[in-house]
Amino acid sequence: MEIVTKKVHFTSPLYLESGRILEPYDIVYESYGKLNKNKDNVILVCHALSGSHHAAGFYKGDRKPGWWDKLIGPNKALDTNRYFVICTNTIGSCFGSTGPMSRMYPSNERYRLKFPVITIKDMIKAQKQLLSHLGIYHLKAIIGGSMGGMQALQFAVDFPGFSDEIIALATTYATKPWVIAFNKVAMEAIRRDPRFKDGNYDVDEFKEEGLSGLAIGRIAGHISYLSPHSMDRKFGRRYVATDGMFELFGRYEVERYLEYNTNNFSRYFDPLSYLYIIKAINTFNLARGYGSLYDAIKRIKDRVHLISFKGDMLFFPEEMEHIAKMLEREKKEFSYLEVDSDYGHDAFLVEIEKFEDRIKEILK
Amino acid sequence: MEIVTKKVHFTSPLYLESGRILEPYDIVYESYGKLNKNKDNVILVCHALSGSHHAAGFYKGDRKPGWWDKLIGPNKALDTNRYFVICTNTIGSCFGSTGPMSRMYPSNERYRLKFPVITIKDMIKAQKQLLSHLGIYHLKAIIGGSMGGMQALQFAVDFPGFSDEIIALATTYATKPWVIAFNKVAMEAIRRDPRFKDGNYDVDEFKEEGLSGLAIGRIAGHISYLSPHSMDRKFGRRYVATDGMFELFGRYEVERYLEYNTNNFSRYFDPLSYLYIIKAINTFNLARGYGSLYDAIKRIKDRVHLISFKGDMLFFPEEMEHIAKMLEREKKEFSYLEVDSDYGHDAFLVEIEKFEDRIKEILK
Repeated sequence: MEIVTKKVHFTSPLYLESGRILEPYDIVYESYGKLNKNKDNVILVCHALSGSHHAAGFYKGDRKPGWWDKLIGPNKALDTNRYFVICTNTIGSCFGSTGPMSRMYPSNERYRLKFPVITIKDMIKAQKQLLSHLGIYHLKAIIGGSMGGMQALQFAVDFPGFSDEIIALATTYATKPWVIAFNKVAMEAIRRDPRFKDGNYDVDEFKEEGLSGLAIGRIAGHISYLSPHSMDRKFGRRYVATDGMFELFGRYEVERYLEYNTNNFSRYFDPLSYLYIIKAINTFNLARGYGSLYDAIKRIKDRVHLISFKGDMLFFPEEMEHIAKMLEREKKEFSYLEVDSDYGHDAFLVEIEKFEDRIKEILK
Repeated sequence: MEIVTKKVHFTSPLYLESGRILEPYDIVYESYGKLNKNKDNVILVCHALSGSHHAAGFYKGDRKPGWWDKLIGPNKALDTNRYFVICTNTIGSCFGSTGPMSRMYPSNERYRLKFPVITIKDMIKAQKQLLSHLGIYHLKAIIGGSMGGMQALQFAVDFPGFSDEIIALATTYATKPWVIAFNKVAMEAIRRDPRFKDGNYDVDEFKEEGLSGLAIGRIAGHISYLSPHSMDRKFGRRYVATDGMFELFGRYEVERYLEYNTNNFSRYFDPLSYLYIIKAINTFNLARGYGSLYDAIKRIKDRVHLISFKGDMLFFPEEMEHIAKMLEREKKEFSYLEVDSDYGHDAFLVEIEKFEDRIKEILK
């Protein structure tokens, strides 16, 4: 499968929900499959907090493919033989689209903490600009999990009729204090880390040794992405070394896993981007701007498909059920599936086999 | 109600599970009610991670009473008109019993990271020494929640027949990776905080401004002590200031709550004690030393009463059910109550009205 990665530079202003303006701005995107003549075979994939536009396929030399590779490709659920699948790096992120470490015009200084607060609404507005730039005015489907699901739902509300299908996985209609609290660990850990220097760190400073604050915040993240049962299965109570028991810092396997993954993450993910993206997640509320959730839902014209995961400890199935009930009340076309899973929130990335058939059905 | 607080100095060695020896050591305890002539009206209360021997009543000038004040007192469930209720500060803690900031003999230096790893078995052994010192050789009941419940269960297994009743709330038979992961946030946040100085901080250094690492770790703790529903009820999506929405560090009420409580905590709780106590929680496993959980449970001669809380996100009811099933299989005298609650783990401290009658029944 061919991977096409491109960056588009926009010189027109992006009007943000905060009233501030992003100008100019870049959007990096990746695509798989071919855009047909009518430009009506497009599926937009939206990524989550730590994701990027690299959703599928292997980069040369990489051992790991894009984050949703099991779902995207020839004859897979998002079938690149039929569809032009596109995934953009959200603004605020750190993989090429404009974010807090980008340079302002005309001073050429990095934004850092001067970067405006970005919301989910802003993220999808930027994606809409990119699609217009590509001459794409209608989508077959918009799909995403977690923060990607927020974007999919926000598309449904903000741009009714823009897509045939909206597929939102492992997400919510408004971020709850439970999630804000998990994000608070990262926010405080990053902010209080002396090496963060109020955002005035060197851009390469964390390449060798990542920012501790980000690694610590990410530990809290990993907890929320798993579940008690998946941790039991993965790690149990096993020690890394048998003599760890009576050493204060002796490690259980679950601790090694958390250390390894979070230290690694803190070497390639930008701490400021992390702060801005968790802020976007915290402020997500479908109702905002429409008076009430009810009024927001009423606007929807696309078919909405909700997929929740039973063991999700971050966005609980009852939150997606709540959306389903509102859609039902409004007699909207929708479907709701609660996947039987005890993997945790990350099931939407891991247990593809449990929901790929549903997605195939939706796209048939 | 009279509060009696005392410290006992032990010059005999305390042989620890690690093979190391604590000698000498102090135990601070508090008691309420009167010890009768036969010394057979004693209830031992065991505290949790952040608790102390101050379980009930008001210290002069304090606006807040001890941590289980709603349960302990005249005519309360642990009725001080009838019982001599005693609560000791566990070894390793920082409220007067020997812990990592205590001084070694004969060097007079503080232990700091030279303090031996302490286990739940060690904690109860020390408490047993104190009781012997007071001439108390049999208890009416041992009761505790969370880490206190671990101690109660460990008493049942290590000293069969020592107590008539064992009452364990919101706890488990062996700490799961889920809990170890939450503790990992605190462990890494404390260890990596430059002001921690590998444990070589000044003892008064954090009185004005607590250690950030401890505060950050404690945020993760608070998440695990609450539940999504209790956070919804307490905080919802309310902002502290209405203009917080478009400020990166603008705070939701849940964030203010977490900041306030954890900053406060980091000013009075010793970071080394925190590390040692979470280590004791991590290593808790009733089976250790007995081959299997089954063999450990077989030893029990006391009546065991288990109380779990439906919405506990730290120690899930199924863990206590597992103990109940083993007790049933072994035809032990026991009772199991799952309290209908969605408050979260802290329900054992907060929703006393939901289980005090059960405790009264047990003690009748």
